Amino acid sequence: MNPAASSLVARRDSRKLMDVALGRQKADMAVINATLINVYTGEILTGQAVGVKDQWIAYAGDDPGPLIGPDTLVLDAAGQTLIPGLIDGHTHMAWICPVHEAVGAAMASGTTTIITETMETYPVAGYRGVVDFLGALADQPITILATAPPMMSISQATAGIDPQELDSLLGRGDIVGLGETYWQQVLAQPHRFLPLMAQTLARSKTLEGHSAGARGHKLAAYAALGVSSCHEPTSADEVLERLRLGIHVMVREGSIRRELEAVAPIVQKAIDLGFAPARAVAMATVNVAEHFGLDPVIGGIAPGRQADMVIVPEPARIAPSTVIAKGRIVWQKGRPAAKPRPHVYEAASLATVRLPRALDPADFAINAPPGATTVKARVIELVTDLVTRETILDLKVNCGLITADPARGLAKVAAVDRAVQPGKRFTGLVAGLGLKQGAIASSGAWDTADIIVAGVNDADMALAVNRIAQMQGGVVACAGGRILAELALPVFGLIGDLPLAQIARRLNDLQTAAMDLGVPFRDALLTLVTLTGAAIPFLRICEEGLVNLKDGATASLLVQAS
Amino acid sequence: MNPAASSLVARRDSRKLMDVALGRQKADMAVINATLINVYTGEILTGQAVGVKDQWIAYAGDDPGPLIGPDTLVLDAAGQTLIPGLIDGHTHMAWICPVHEAVGAAMASGTTTIITETMETYPVAGYRGVVDFLGALADQPITILATAPPMMSISQATAGIDPQELDSLLGRGDIVGLGETYWQQVLAQPHRFLPLMAQTLARSKTLEGHSAGARGHKLAAYAALGVSSCHEPTSADEVLERLRLGIHVMVREGSIRRELEAVAPIVQKAIDLGFAPARAVAMATVNVAEHFGLDPVIGGIAPGRQADMVIVPEPARIAPSTVIAKGRIVWQKGRPAAKPRPHVYEAASLATVRLPRALDPADFAINAPPGATTVKARVIELVTDLVTRETILDLKVNCGLITADPARGLAKVAAVDRAVQPGKRFTGLVAGLGLKQGAIASSGAWDTADIIVAGVNDADMALAVNRIAQMQGGVVACAGGRILAELALPVFGLIGDLPLAQIARRLNDLQTAAMDLGVPFRDALLTLVTLTGAAIPFLRICEEGLVNLKDGATASLLVQAS
Repeated sequence: MNPAASSLVARRDSRKLMDVALGRQKADMAVINATLINVYTGEILTGQAVGVKDQWIAYAGDDPGPLIGPDTLVLDAAGQTLIPGLIDGHTHMAWICPVHEAVGAAMASGTTTIITETMETYPVAGYRGVVDFLGALADQPITILATAPPMMSISQATAGIDPQELDSLLGRGDIVGLGETYWQQVLAQPHRFLPLMAQTLARSKTLEGHSAGARGHKLAAYAALGVSSCHEPTSADEVLERLRLGIHVMVREGSIRRELEAVAPIVQKAIDLGFAPARAVAMATVNVAEHFGLDPVIGGIAPGRQADMVIVPEPARIAPSTVIAKGRIVWQKGRPAAKPRPHVYEAASLATVRLPRALDPADFAINAPPGATTVKARVIELVTDLVTRETILDLKVNCGLITADPARGLAKVAAVDRAVQPGKRFTGLVAGLGLKQGAIASSGAWDTADIIVAGVNDADMALAVNRIAQMQGGVVACAGGRILAELALPVFGLIGDLPLAQIARRLNDLQTAAMDLGVPFRDALLTLVTLTGAAIPFLRICEEGLVNLKDGATASLLVQAS
Repeated sequence: MNPAASSLVARRDSRKLMDVALGRQKADMAVINATLINVYTGEILTGQAVGVKDQWIAYAGDDPGPLIGPDTLVLDAAGQTLIPGLIDGHTHMAWICPVHEAVGAAMASGTTTIITETMETYPVAGYRGVVDFLGALADQPITILATAPPMMSISQATAGIDPQELDSLLGRGDIVGLGETYWQQVLAQPHRFLPLMAQTLARSKTLEGHSAGARGHKLAAYAALGVSSCHEPTSADEVLERLRLGIHVMVREGSIRRELEAVAPIVQKAIDLGFAPARAVAMATVNVAEHFGLDPVIGGIAPGRQADMVIVPEPARIAPSTVIAKGRIVWQKGRPAAKPRPHVYEAASLATVRLPRALDPADFAINAPPGATTVKARVIELVTDLVTRETILDLKVNCGLITADPARGLAKVAAVDRAVQPGKRFTGLVAGLGLKQGAIASSGAWDTADIIVAGVNDADMALAVNRIAQMQGGVVACAGGRILAELALPVFGLIGDLPLAQIARRLNDLQTAAMDLGVPFRDALLTLVTLTGAAIPFLRICEEGLVNLKDGATASLLVQAS
């Protein structure tokens, strides 16, 4: 089992559970008369009862009588179905939505355990930032566990995690393993990442994977390192190839932000697609628990497991009437029955945009070689909303400068380090982003400590970045010197401080603004922040320059004549 | 994952495996053209290849070309089926058969991993004995892992394990968890056993269970303690009730000695019973690995797993033509291709029968109360060959003594401590054993440090015990002052030093002798040694007296008139 499960078990008073099961002590809570989906056997059993003591299940069976005393809270689930609390095995909670707001949404959906990455916090706030973020996850009405950041990054300044710091994180009870390692980076830089993976396996914790696009020998090589999951497959063939190699596959539903709230819909979708309800529920409960080695404590309704359970009126429809997490009712009759805890972050976590000065438009100028009238430039071309490739374009030089050319679909894109070497920046070119005017920028930029900004004029690019600095993080769309839409993300420059509904509205406004500026993609922010990412091929940008993921090498913006 | 898996992973050079998978280095061995049973997907795939480096699988797929160099040993499995090495999840290897002989038998059957209990060694040789036994399991051609002894015992002298010693054992890479705890003992003595179970879970290792006869609330109470397996169910109902509570069930095939060699027959039987071959193979491979949290290293044919594989000519018949363990061929063409290592045990492990003096017939006399002509005696009655109950019989006193009465089916039975308080003994009565003459004795006696001896005359009982002492352990059948059959077990007084075939012959001779003496059971030795056992209800005997498993209390032989 995962040592993280041991940490949960350490809180369990086995003697008390034993006594409750035997009727020597009374249960705190009992669910009775339920139709129970048993995820261990795949059965749907009627007339079932569950006895709860503290945050644990003490009894499951058909004879709750001996456990029920005058102080036992009895929930009669007659006519309803009882399933284990859902588990979301892969999320990015250090991203936009405040933790307590995400917890509230999870509770409503019947999600009682979340596993989240922490990779976003490390480059901008270091080990102390990760620990602060883990503090935000602790003592919530539901269980939140996390992975340690391996820090795959195209930037040498933010690639890799200090082995001592990793070891401290791996030693924690709330860390289940090492977060997603991107296969290309691992295979390209084994000297850097294999030791971190070995450190994790030595701690008996899991290696989460990211094998988008890998196949054949490369996928086998990645599997040989002990990677045990991938959440990237988008086709049945990709799923099958991974399963055959002993890699667990996590099926995603929707884009980043939707994933958190999408666990229930996933189960729903599986049911709608024809999976037996018991099978579909197992996919989102015990299977996830087993993947992480957490099945001794979560994932099923059985004695000794944490009392995480969902009562649904209809077995084929995952619409909870009551959600029980850690032995307490957290959601009932369409309303929260427990209060997610807002975290008070450390001052350092609220001061991660540390630019030494406001940026000028001139800071985004790209100089051509002296005397040149045309140049060959290496341009990031968006092939889809996320996948890019390198394209070489012949560009005219204007007054010694290389400029955006909206008519040709060419914008500037710059990455500005905000935390590690604050102010260090690189400006390049992106084709296919669609911007006709203005700029969009974000202080969240995958795998780096950068602010990423794209724009067709330098003044709006500077405005967007400076506005983000003023807000201590956020997302901004502007044009003609005017802010069109914005969302402040003051925690780590990554996480907002507004209620979920307001954040959703502002994200929507930002998307509308981006589309008004010409961006054709359904999630312009995701397209923008992925420009710095190390996970998705091929040409990316960071404060150090352009990086081709094929070899991890930095490439110049201007191409020498061959 | 189980920390024991981490210990195995620590030997894995991931970089090398990665390089082999990518074709940058050549494989040591490649199996090609195989029909492969993929236990992860349940598929049967043709044209498959596996590349092996050191003791690990580096590649699995359909394109072995890049891995094969001039020094690669290529095994063409065209027309044959490749399955993962079988795993035997529950054995008692410290019992009769020398380890290296058992390993030889396992190799022949395609068993490449064995998990064994160690409980037999602790009472007779202590922590040092367990460690010596673990030494015998190490560095064998196949993988052998073990559980630490919880020491359930009806004898207070041998009940429980020292927590420090348990912790030292749990810290070892070859210990996967705590050995089988008997549910009645655990529920009756939680103060003694719950801390040992908590210690094990804190080390992220498994709790093996033994829940024979438990059901309903008692089974739930046992499950609530974190017990994750049971190998005792004998009916589909019992299996189902355990599965529903999240307990893994191990299906046995045959009696104790047969279990080790029976893994292949089990798979065979499952296939014969109609399980798809892939499902049946999974039951004896990946399922067992997952139960113990060892699936990252064994149980399937995938990159990064130990190269434990079996080539079988017919998919529906598990008769290996080649067995590969730890990356080496260990069995081929009906012959061993690797040599199991005989262990040189410590002197102390060979001197565990420490009776202070030879016993006299008078040592087994049972005195009646002065002047009594009849007594009411508490007698162990064999209800089956293993299950007993307490029965109260009126017995005549002969010359002040209570004696065996073969005509009534009544024999004497004595337990003689040979290691902890050597010479301490208790003599009682057993009904239903069938002995008409002579005595049978064994220095292996479940859960105790006792020699167990049953007989109808005191002289033969003394002879049997004294002969065992001379042999430093063994099994003896005698009558009329003559040894009829015997088997020496000089290692811990538990394990023999003869080849398997000779041991089998001697066991057969002992069984024949026991039947000649009147014992009707198919395994007289098993019946005898179970008389001291703490696992099977109800009345048992040890050097401290009679013990009723219902409450664990010692009961007197003579019953006071009520």
